[in-house]
Amino acid sequence: MPRFNEFYLNLNQNYLFAEIRRRTKVFTDAHPDVRLVDLGVGDVTQPLPAAVVRAIHEAADDMARRESFKGYGPYVGYEFLRAEIASHDFGSRGVKIAVDEIFVSDGGKSDSANLQEIFAQDCVVALMDPVYPVYADSNVVAGRSGRADESGRYAGIVYLPCTAENNFQPALPDRHVDLIYLCYPNNPTGAVMTRETLARWIDYARRERAVILYDAAYEAYVREAGVPRSIYEVAGAREVAIEFRSFSKTAGFTGTRCAFTVVPKDLHGRSGAGESVSLNALWLRRQSTKFNGVPYIVQRAAAAVYTEEGRRQVRGQIDYYMDNAAIIRAGVEAVGLTAYGGRNAPYIWVKTPRGVSSWEFFDKLLTEAHVVGTPGAGFGPSGEGYFRLTAFGRRDQTEEAVDRIKKRLTL
Amino acid sequence: MPRFNEFYLNLNQNYLFAEIRRRTKVFTDAHPDVRLVDLGVGDVTQPLPAAVVRAIHEAADDMARRESFKGYGPYVGYEFLRAEIASHDFGSRGVKIAVDEIFVSDGGKSDSANLQEIFAQDCVVALMDPVYPVYADSNVVAGRSGRADESGRYAGIVYLPCTAENNFQPALPDRHVDLIYLCYPNNPTGAVMTRETLARWIDYARRERAVILYDAAYEAYVREAGVPRSIYEVAGAREVAIEFRSFSKTAGFTGTRCAFTVVPKDLHGRSGAGESVSLNALWLRRQSTKFNGVPYIVQRAAAAVYTEEGRRQVRGQIDYYMDNAAIIRAGVEAVGLTAYGGRNAPYIWVKTPRGVSSWEFFDKLLTEAHVVGTPGAGFGPSGEGYFRLTAFGRRDQTEEAVDRIKKRLTL
Repeated sequence: MPRFNEFYLNLNQNYLFAEIRRRTKVFTDAHPDVRLVDLGVGDVTQPLPAAVVRAIHEAADDMARRESFKGYGPYVGYEFLRAEIASHDFGSRGVKIAVDEIFVSDGGKSDSANLQEIFAQDCVVALMDPVYPVYADSNVVAGRSGRADESGRYAGIVYLPCTAENNFQPALPDRHVDLIYLCYPNNPTGAVMTRETLARWIDYARRERAVILYDAAYEAYVREAGVPRSIYEVAGAREVAIEFRSFSKTAGFTGTRCAFTVVPKDLHGRSGAGESVSLNALWLRRQSTKFNGVPYIVQRAAAAVYTEEGRRQVRGQIDYYMDNAAIIRAGVEAVGLTAYGGRNAPYIWVKTPRGVSSWEFFDKLLTEAHVVGTPGAGFGPSGEGYFRLTAFGRRDQTEEAVDRIKKRLTL
Repeated sequence: MPRFNEFYLNLNQNYLFAEIRRRTKVFTDAHPDVRLVDLGVGDVTQPLPAAVVRAIHEAADDMARRESFKGYGPYVGYEFLRAEIASHDFGSRGVKIAVDEIFVSDGGKSDSANLQEIFAQDCVVALMDPVYPVYADSNVVAGRSGRADESGRYAGIVYLPCTAENNFQPALPDRHVDLIYLCYPNNPTGAVMTRETLARWIDYARRERAVILYDAAYEAYVREAGVPRSIYEVAGAREVAIEFRSFSKTAGFTGTRCAFTVVPKDLHGRSGAGESVSLNALWLRRQSTKFNGVPYIVQRAAAAVYTEEGRRQVRGQIDYYMDNAAIIRAGVEAVGLTAYGGRNAPYIWVKTPRGVSSWEFFDKLLTEAHVVGTPGAGFGPSGEGYFRLTAFGRRDQTEEAVDRIKKRLTL
């Protein structure tokens, strides 16, 4: 038996969704007649837009004929898709991103997990708390964390608490860090970051020679004018920031798998000897060494998102989910709960009543209202005392859930 | 600027295909009227089988309706595909592989590059020479290689030369190694490994407590009875071998992206403290941390390969390419060259005439016969004096290339 990568032993077992399933099952076994409504899931429920489906059919027909068949494609994605991204996601917002700064991939999860591979093992990582677990986990197995303490925080990682007290806007680290993961609109808190706050982070990164890994997977949900949808809308970001984007939550691609990462050519890393290397070139090398591109069919599907019809249909889906978000937020506020998010994000972050823990609130919602949600503590220690509800459900179920919360939840 | 992963500086620049393009361009610029025939490319040219295309259309329609829409799927692939794999690829050949030993992925390249991540950095890696460059490159950037010498061999890697002298069957390492990459049917040599030889490798791995990473991407091209298509056809393999498989060269999926890896539950790694860990569990953890599964549409496409119609159509494509292989091998032998492979593999490995280097032969074939191939030296030092031709072209072009070699090549 060869030695395995022992950094895997440092990984916290994440029992969040397993524990949700367990408690839900205990309840449904005891109450077989109860039909639960699930506002916990972070997955979309609306079908693919018609323009996207049509593009898949057309691409399948291309693959059926020798003249139009596609074998290996470019590691970084087809030009036809990258050009649409550069133009619609950035150019139309006054942001100049070149086609060769865009790397198409199979998912935002893959990109946000793999990106750390191009950095040295001794880089210091800063994470928001609460947070999407992949940022931490991928750095843990790369050997940057050490073991976790009882609260689940890793010794080697710098945590940036995000709570109502700081309006879910973390303070700048009080020490040097090399890599900073920021996610806005945020999962799970639903918060956004203003241009001014982002500018402070960019200043910090320039001063500390750090890189910001900016996850904008939910940018399509930004409603308020002036809230940046890309970090590159803020001056100076090209020299310090990498941005992750995804079609998953924008166009319903969670089961179709397409995303992209922007690595500006202004970004550099340095060797121990002080040599400077382009991070764009390094990520290209990583992708061409360990990845072979996204299916042609899927890239055609993603390109259809940028057609006039595709954009209209995607806007319709976002509107649908954001109407759900408004219904949920109004509903929980109507019963006297304090809620955050849901205005520029598909997540509503509910403050549990004083003294009630995340998991106690889970049990209360389950047993009284027959609604399933996600305990905030599952996203990190600073999520304790909060609870996540999502807007990705069907309208009838969302309305049913809110109705039950109003009628049955005792506070 | 944070420190980057300096192991990337150890990577050899692989100039092989760039240099082929450069020399080809110099020739075509000087001879604009010449139409070259390309037998160098390792990509398929036949369209997707009709059964596969139909499955894509059906899956696209599933994605268009809310009732049948698929969001996030299992990280390891849908049961409907894994069950077909277990039954058709293994069960039907008397090999017992459980569904939860099969991990569906986006490509054999990704799997063969990523698999090393679950092993410790100080594991010693053995590679065949010549070889598919991804095995080496992924270990180089993980820090297992050190720098390369002038011949391109990395100091920290154990090379296993494969030449006509040993019938392209490498000798067992004369020292301890932890990870052994074997690829049969082989790219680029076209060789296969017999059951008896594989048994010796399995014995070695058991004795040395090593793991064999067996790349069987070309197993569908095995024609001779008795040549194993899976390493698990040989006794003892379940305790020492991981197997990579792909739909790329079997069913024309190079642009559609689907593959799978088998990690038997009998396999273990050990910690420095002597603790034993299941490699199946570790790979599951790696995939669920850094990967989010293959598109539903693509998994439906792959499952269609196992229908009666799909199998018949795939057999037809393999027959087509293998007829090309027979034409090429007979052609080069007819002009007096010695050739290997092409009988159980889509690659023909030609011995260059005495004293002619791989690159000299490239130039000769280009300028005299107007045929492009791949110099063997590009796959490693032991490929010097050899030349690779592939059977993946169209029939008319394959015949044209052979005709030109016969009529125009001077030896």
